[in-house]
Amino acid sequence: MAARSRCVLQRVWIGFRSHSVCRPSLTSASCQGRLPRKPPIRHVSSSPRLDKSDTPPSTGPSSLSFRSHTCGELRSDHVGERVTLCGWVQYLRQDQFVILRDFSGLTQVLIPQEDSAGDLKAALCDLTVESVVKVTGTVRRRPDGQQNKAMPTGEIEVQAESIEVFNLSRKLPFEIKDFVKKSEALRMQYRYLDLRSFQMQHNLRLRSQLVMKMREYLCNVHGFVDVETPTLFKRTPGGAKEFVVPSRDPGRFYSLPQSPQQFKQLLMVAGIDRYFQMARCYRDEGSKPDRQPEFTQVDIEMSFVDQAGIMSLVEGLIQYSWPVEKGPIEVPFQTMTYEEAMRDYGVDKPDTRFNMKLIDLSEIFLSTEIQFLRSAVSQPGGSFQAICVPDGAKLLAGKDLENLKQTAKTHFGQELTLVLVKADGTLKSPLKKLLSPSDTDRILQRTAAKPGDLLLTAAGSSQTVRPLLGHLRLHCAQLLESRGITVRDPAAFHFLWVVDFPLFLPKEGEPEQLESAHHPFTAPLPEDMELLYTEPQKVRGQHYDLVLNGCEIGGGSIRIHKASIQQYVLNNILKEDPSLLSHLLEALDSGAPPHGGIALGLDRLVSIMVGASSIRDVIAFPKSFRGHDLMSCAPDFVPEEELKSYHISVNWLTKQKGGGDAGNRSEEGEESGMKTCQ
Amino acid sequence: MAARSRCVLQRVWIGFRSHSVCRPSLTSASCQGRLPRKPPIRHVSSSPRLDKSDTPPSTGPSSLSFRSHTCGELRSDHVGERVTLCGWVQYLRQDQFVILRDFSGLTQVLIPQEDSAGDLKAALCDLTVESVVKVTGTVRRRPDGQQNKAMPTGEIEVQAESIEVFNLSRKLPFEIKDFVKKSEALRMQYRYLDLRSFQMQHNLRLRSQLVMKMREYLCNVHGFVDVETPTLFKRTPGGAKEFVVPSRDPGRFYSLPQSPQQFKQLLMVAGIDRYFQMARCYRDEGSKPDRQPEFTQVDIEMSFVDQAGIMSLVEGLIQYSWPVEKGPIEVPFQTMTYEEAMRDYGVDKPDTRFNMKLIDLSEIFLSTEIQFLRSAVSQPGGSFQAICVPDGAKLLAGKDLENLKQTAKTHFGQELTLVLVKADGTLKSPLKKLLSPSDTDRILQRTAAKPGDLLLTAAGSSQTVRPLLGHLRLHCAQLLESRGITVRDPAAFHFLWVVDFPLFLPKEGEPEQLESAHHPFTAPLPEDMELLYTEPQKVRGQHYDLVLNGCEIGGGSIRIHKASIQQYVLNNILKEDPSLLSHLLEALDSGAPPHGGIALGLDRLVSIMVGASSIRDVIAFPKSFRGHDLMSCAPDFVPEEELKSYHISVNWLTKQKGGGDAGNRSEEGEESGMKTCQ
Repeated sequence: MAARSRCVLQRVWIGFRSHSVCRPSLTSASCQGRLPRKPPIRHVSSSPRLDKSDTPPSTGPSSLSFRSHTCGELRSDHVGERVTLCGWVQYLRQDQFVILRDFSGLTQVLIPQEDSAGDLKAALCDLTVESVVKVTGTVRRRPDGQQNKAMPTGEIEVQAESIEVFNLSRKLPFEIKDFVKKSEALRMQYRYLDLRSFQMQHNLRLRSQLVMKMREYLCNVHGFVDVETPTLFKRTPGGAKEFVVPSRDPGRFYSLPQSPQQFKQLLMVAGIDRYFQMARCYRDEGSKPDRQPEFTQVDIEMSFVDQAGIMSLVEGLIQYSWPVEKGPIEVPFQTMTYEEAMRDYGVDKPDTRFNMKLIDLSEIFLSTEIQFLRSAVSQPGGSFQAICVPDGAKLLAGKDLENLKQTAKTHFGQELTLVLVKADGTLKSPLKKLLSPSDTDRILQRTAAKPGDLLLTAAGSSQTVRPLLGHLRLHCAQLLESRGITVRDPAAFHFLWVVDFPLFLPKEGEPEQLESAHHPFTAPLPEDMELLYTEPQKVRGQHYDLVLNGCEIGGGSIRIHKASIQQYVLNNILKEDPSLLSHLLEALDSGAPPHGGIALGLDRLVSIMVGASSIRDVIAFPKSFRGHDLMSCAPDFVPEEELKSYHISVNWLTKQKGGGDAGNRSEEGEESGMKTCQ
Repeated sequence: MAARSRCVLQRVWIGFRSHSVCRPSLTSASCQGRLPRKPPIRHVSSSPRLDKSDTPPSTGPSSLSFRSHTCGELRSDHVGERVTLCGWVQYLRQDQFVILRDFSGLTQVLIPQEDSAGDLKAALCDLTVESVVKVTGTVRRRPDGQQNKAMPTGEIEVQAESIEVFNLSRKLPFEIKDFVKKSEALRMQYRYLDLRSFQMQHNLRLRSQLVMKMREYLCNVHGFVDVETPTLFKRTPGGAKEFVVPSRDPGRFYSLPQSPQQFKQLLMVAGIDRYFQMARCYRDEGSKPDRQPEFTQVDIEMSFVDQAGIMSLVEGLIQYSWPVEKGPIEVPFQTMTYEEAMRDYGVDKPDTRFNMKLIDLSEIFLSTEIQFLRSAVSQPGGSFQAICVPDGAKLLAGKDLENLKQTAKTHFGQELTLVLVKADGTLKSPLKKLLSPSDTDRILQRTAAKPGDLLLTAAGSSQTVRPLLGHLRLHCAQLLESRGITVRDPAAFHFLWVVDFPLFLPKEGEPEQLESAHHPFTAPLPEDMELLYTEPQKVRGQHYDLVLNGCEIGGGSIRIHKASIQQYVLNNILKEDPSLLSHLLEALDSGAPPHGGIALGLDRLVSIMVGASSIRDVIAFPKSFRGHDLMSCAPDFVPEEELKSYHISVNWLTKQKGGGDAGNRSEEGEESGMKTCQ
C-alpha cells in the first residue's frame, strides 16, 4: 500500500532560484507513511481568516493548498500570525518590498535587510516581475504613515522568513496592470496573461457565481432537472448556420445545433417536467462583430405552464441570482407588446433607460398642402414621424447632422428632415417656409420640443420610418453622451418583456410566402387561433423576448403541443418538408403536455452586468471576430491522411496549401503585425 | 402596456376531449389587466404539501404550474383538500378509476358514477393510455380494504370533479412500464417514451442532483471557479480520435477536443487558481461498445497543490455529493501503487470487492525439474503464478474450464494449467504427476486452496501472466455469480487510488521509442527526477487513477510547470514537434504556478451508482454503439451546396448517394427490422 506524501508542503528553500529541477529536501520515499494525511472535510467550518497557523485551512479558497491565506485577505487582525502566501510578483520596490499578487489582491512583502538573511534578500531582490513564489513570514502592522488606504491589505505587510521560487518569468509581451493598454489581438494571443488582470478575474468569477445562483434557484427552489443534451445532432431544416461534423459513414454529417430546441421539447414529452441546462450552442455566422461561433445559453423548459408562469420564473431567476453589489432588481419587469415597442421606439428591443420616443405627427398633416407630407400620410401604412433630441440643436454640429441624414439615406433609403429649435424659439428647417404657424405650434406641442432641441422627422412607410427613427434615437443618445450629457444611467438595469410578436413574417425576397418570426414551434395566442386557418399573417404568437438596456438577452415561447396544429403550420403555412421533423411530430402525438420555455444568452447578460464592451470580455477563451483562436491558431490545417477516414477532401482555391494564398489571409496578423496563424 | 394573463389556469372543461384546438372560455383579451400576476418569490417558503387550496405553491416542483400537487405526494394528511393534478394516463380500471402518472409517482383518480356527472364520466372513460390531462378533485381516504400499501399514495384517491384533456395519445410502440422488455434499438428510436419509465426518470434526476452537490462542494466549500472552455479548438498532436469541423477558411479545421487539458493548465497560468467545469468532451472511436462520441467529465485543476491535496479534494467531493440512499462513503480511499495492482490483481484498475488475488509461486520452483516451469521462472521477468477460485472445482463445469483455457490461448497466447482440489483434498491436474508431495503442499499452503477449490496457473513472462490471470479473475467471478454465488456485493462501492504509474511506456510496434503513459504534461515523481535524463523508462509519474468497483472513473496528475522540463520531455523523450504546443510552452515560461488536477468520468460514475448496465442508461439522448442517433437519424446527408462554403466535398465510395451502398449500412436497421436511417 502506497502512502501519499505532502512532502512538497514541507519544503522550504532559502534563496532557491534556479530554473532547474526542484530537489526535495525530504525524498518522497522517506516521507511514506510518516506524514498523516488530513482527512477530507465535509462541512464548512470556521472562516480561514481565523486560522492561527500557516497551515492551509480546511475550507475556503486556501484549503488543501500550499498557502495559508490568499494575497487579498490579510488585515490588522492577522498581525503576529505566521502565514504562507503564494502568488505572482507584481513589482519590486526599492529592494525593500516585493508586492505579491493572486486573484484576490495584493500583499506587500518586506525584504529582510539584516546581513544574516543575505541569501533570502538576494533571492527576493533577484525576482523578475510575474515570477511565481511561495513566501512564509509573519504579519506585521505597517509603520505609521506607510499605510495604504487604497489597498485592502494596506494596513499590514508580511516580514519574509523564507521563500520558494516555483518559476521565474521571462520578459512578457505586456505588463499585468489593468491600466496598461493592449491591442485586442495581443490580448487574445496571450490570453493566459490577459486573464491575470483584476478586471478579467472579476468578470469570470462573477459569471461563475451567477451561474451557481441560477442553478440553486432552478434546482433547489423550483425542482428543475439539469439534463445534458447532445451537441452532435442532425442538421435541422434550413440550418444554414450550423457547423457540420463529418462522420466515418461516407457523406453523413453531424451538425452542431444552434440550440437544444428539439431536445428540450422532447424532454417535456418524456415527462421530465422541468428541464434546464447551461447549454453550449453553435452558430456559424462568418464574421459578425461581437458574435462567437460557440456561446452559452441558460436553457429552460417547463410542462403544465403558461406564458405568465415562465415570465415569473425568469423574473425570480434574475432577482435571485443578481449580484448583491449591483443593487436590487425589481419585479415584475415592465411588459410591452411588439406593436407598442415598434410604435414608440421603432425597434423590438427598446432601450427604456431614456425617453426620446417616436412621435407620430401624421394626424396634423392629413389634409396638408405640403405635397410630400400629404402623399406620405395618405398612403396605406404611411406616416410622418419625429423624435425630439433634447439640446440637439445646441450640442450637435453641422457635421453630425449631415451624418444623420446620410445614414438615413444610405441604410434606410429615406429622406430625413431636420427641424432645429433655436434659442429664441424659432425654427431652422427646410420645412419652415412650408409650415403654417398653426402647424408649427402643433408640432412643437406634440413633440414638447423646447428651445435648443432638435427634431428628426421622416415621412414615408411606417415600416421604414419607425426602424430609421429607432436607429437614430440610439445614435443620438451616443452622440449626446460623447458630448458629456448623461442620457442613460450606466448603473441602471432596465429589464423589459416584449410580447405579442407576429407569429409569421413575409419571407425576405419572397414576400407572398410566410416564414416563422422565431421558430415553427411557437404556439399562437389562443384568441388568434382561428386566424391561423384564415389570415395566418395576422396571428400573434405566445412568444416573449427579454430585453435588458436595449439588448435582447432572452427569448422563448409556449410551444405547440398538438401534432395536428404543428403539422398544419409546417405543411400548409411554412411549406416545409415535415419528414425532417417526423420524430418531433410523432412525439407530439404520443402524449405531449402543454409546455413552454426560454433561453437566456448568458454571455450577453454577464457582459451587460459587468459593463464590458464585448462578450469577449466575459468568455475565458473567445474567438476573434473571424472565428480564429489567436493563441493556438485554430482553425488549422489537418493532414489529408486524417481526413480520409471522414471521406472528405478539401476544395483548394489555389494549388498552394498552408503557405499559399489560402493560408495567408489572417485578418489579425495583418491588423497587428503579430505572428500570423499559418 | 400589455397585461399578461394566466387565463389557461382558469379554464376548466368538463368532458372536453376532442383533438381540435382549445377554445378558452375566457378570451385572453377579457382577462387583460384583470388577473393580477403573482409576484415572483425569492425565498423557499413552507412546503407545498401544506397548501390548502388547488392553486400552485410558490416553490417546489409544482410552483408556477397548472397543478397544485404532483402525482406522487398526496397522503392521508391531504384528505379533504381540493387539488389539481396533471399527468399521463397510466391505465384505466373497471371504468371506475384512472391511474394518473407523473415523474413523481401515481395517483388513483375516482371516476364519478352519478348520472349528473355523465359528461365527466364519459371523458374519463374515453381516455387512451398515455393521454395527458389535468384533473381537479377532492382527496378522499380509500375505503377500508382498498388501500394499496405498495403505492406511496395508496391510502388516498382523488374524486374527480373536472378534467381538461391536453392531448390524447396514439397507440404507442411499447407500454410505459418498467417490466415491459423493449429492444435497445426501440428504446433509442422512441427515447422520449423510454425516458418516461421510473428507472430512467430516477437515473436522470439522480445525475442532476449529484452534479448540483458537486458544484456546491467545489464552488461554495472550496472556492472553485466554473469556467467554460471552447470546444472548437485546434487539433492536438496525435489527435487521431478527434472529430474535425471544417471552417470557412479553405483547408482549415477546428477540432472537438477530447478534454480541456490545455485550457485547464492555461487557466492556472492565468491565475484562476481553482477551476472546474462539467466539460463536454468528444472522442471518435468508431464503434466501441459502451463508449459515446460525446461524454461529460468533471474537470478540475488547482494551483499550489500537491498530489495529496487533489486526492483529498476528490475524496471530499465524492463523500459530499454521494446520494444519501446509497449509504455513507468512507474516506480516505484505499491507495495502491501501479506495481502492487499489477502484482496482486494483474490489472491497473483492480476490483477490490473480492479477493482471489494473484499468487506468485515462482519461488517454489526455482530449482524444479519440471522443465517448462524452470524455464519460465528462470527467464528474466518470468514467473509461475496462480489464482485460487473458491469452490471453482465444485461449481465450474468441464466446458467452463475448457473456455478458460481457450481464452488464455486465444487472447493471451498463453497456456493455462488447471489444478482442481478434489473433495478429498487430492489434486486433479496435468501437473499432478510432475509435482512432488512437498511442491503440492507448498502450493496448497501458498494459495490457501481448500477442497473444492480451483487453481488457475500460468508460467511465462509476468507481462503476459499477470494480465491473463487478472482477466480470468474477473471472468471467474462472473462465472461463479452466474451459478448463484455472491462474489461481489452489488450494493458495495469500493473506491481505490492507483498511484506511481510509469511515466512512459514503450510505443506499440516501435518498442525502442517511448510514449506517454497518460499525457506529456504529467510531472515525474520528485525522487525519479534525475532518471528523466538517464533512464526515462524507469521514471514514475505523479499520476493517480481513481477506480470504483474495478472501473477507472477518473485520472489526473500533477503537471510539469517548468517550460525547460516540458520541452525536454517533448523534444528529447517523446520526439514530438514542440511547435504544435508552442503556446503552452510559452505559457509555462510566463510565470506558471505548480498545479495539478483530475478528470472524473461522470457518465461512468453515475452508471455504477445506479447499477446501470450501460452508460446509455444515464444519458438522456445517447448514440448507438456505432455513433448513430436512432431517433433523429443523425449523422445524416447534407446537400452538396451546403458543403461548398466549407470548401469540402465527399469522397463517395460508390457513385450512388443516399439510397446507395454508402447509405444502407445501418446496423440498427438490420438488427431490428425497424426504419433505417437513410
